[in-house]
Amino acid sequence: MSLVLDSAAQDLLFREARTANTFTDEPVTEEQIQAIYDLVKYGPTAFNQTPLRITLVRSAEARERLVKHMAEGNQPKTSTAPLVAILSADNEFHEELPALFPAFPQAKELFFSERPAREQSAVLNASLQAAYFIIGIRAAGLAAGPMTGVDFAGLQKEFLDDDHTPLIVMNIGKPGEDAWYPRGPRLAFDEVITTV
Amino acid sequence: MSLVLDSAAQDLLFREARTANTFTDEPVTEEQIQAIYDLVKYGPTAFNQTPLRITLVRSAEARERLVKHMAEGNQPKTSTAPLVAILSADNEFHEELPALFPAFPQAKELFFSERPAREQSAVLNASLQAAYFIIGIRAAGLAAGPMTGVDFAGLQKEFLDDDHTPLIVMNIGKPGEDAWYPRGPRLAFDEVITTV
Repeated sequence: MSLVLDSAAQDLLFREARTANTFTDEPVTEEQIQAIYDLVKYGPTAFNQTPLRITLVRSAEARERLVKHMAEGNQPKTSTAPLVAILSADNEFHEELPALFPAFPQAKELFFSERPAREQSAVLNASLQAAYFIIGIRAAGLAAGPMTGVDFAGLQKEFLDDDHTPLIVMNIGKPGEDAWYPRGPRLAFDEVITTV
Repeated sequence: MSLVLDSAAQDLLFREARTANTFTDEPVTEEQIQAIYDLVKYGPTAFNQTPLRITLVRSAEARERLVKHMAEGNQPKTSTAPLVAILSADNEFHEELPALFPAFPQAKELFFSERPAREQSAVLNASLQAAYFIIGIRAAGLAAGPMTGVDFAGLQKEFLDDDHTPLIVMNIGKPGEDAWYPRGPRLAFDEVITTV
């Protein structure tokens, strides 16, 4: 066994965790979200730019506005999940860079003065952080249900602004009945990894 | 404490793990990479598309070809890390979709028949998998050194093809002397998370 991580943790985060499509009624508390954030905020990003922003959709009114932008097949679960979060990339993250990466404060001007370069970096690094957030949800004993079947242009207009690119809508909660499909197969090592 | 994950695992994966800039000489074995892949392959992607591809740069000749595409500040660590991996997104992942997501084989034609939609999905989902891979490297007791300071166009020409978009070059190994800067500050909960 070549891993250091204990096998219960491996199961919790990867082997037994699954993307849930149904949820119980048990609420997801503010304390749980804070504990998740306090853990996953340490996940690495380029120049510590940490561009991920999270909108927790807690009110019934906001949930209704969200659901209408979801693909039909995603609407029932988005309606019934205990908590739904909109994950977006902040394209103006560079404003915080001198504070976030004091070792090299020139990075803000040197690499991120142009918006297209910023957007590309924000999407990549916010996507890394979205994955850390999924791992954090599982670390809290909850199931994540990430979805990209979304009218993102409509969603952005409804909840965000031009400086925030929505990436994923995430259901969060305890898995309910028949919460998932049988797990799909994974690619073999040699189909993914080549050596040069 | 709202997390289920034990605190040693929290430390290993997030709290004590750091992006390493120097490494010891200890090799990273094929068994370690296989164990990492066997764990992180289960991380979720949309329609189980799993578009991440990994090129392990093991030969001295390939390492030399890689280093010349790195930003100057990244060259010394890329030269000396025990192992370097090129992480890319396979824009033709849809060919495998009917096998990877048997619950909905129509997805291939319905959502991914156009290349721009495929590329966007491949980059997002391969980025999620890149983060799972970072977590997996840490789960093996190793340090990851992800880098985007790379001439990606030149790198793609040198090692990949038009169907593979390079995203990150990753140093892998045991951290060496003075392996990292002091950890940068993280954004406060309220700067990242809003509730509606």
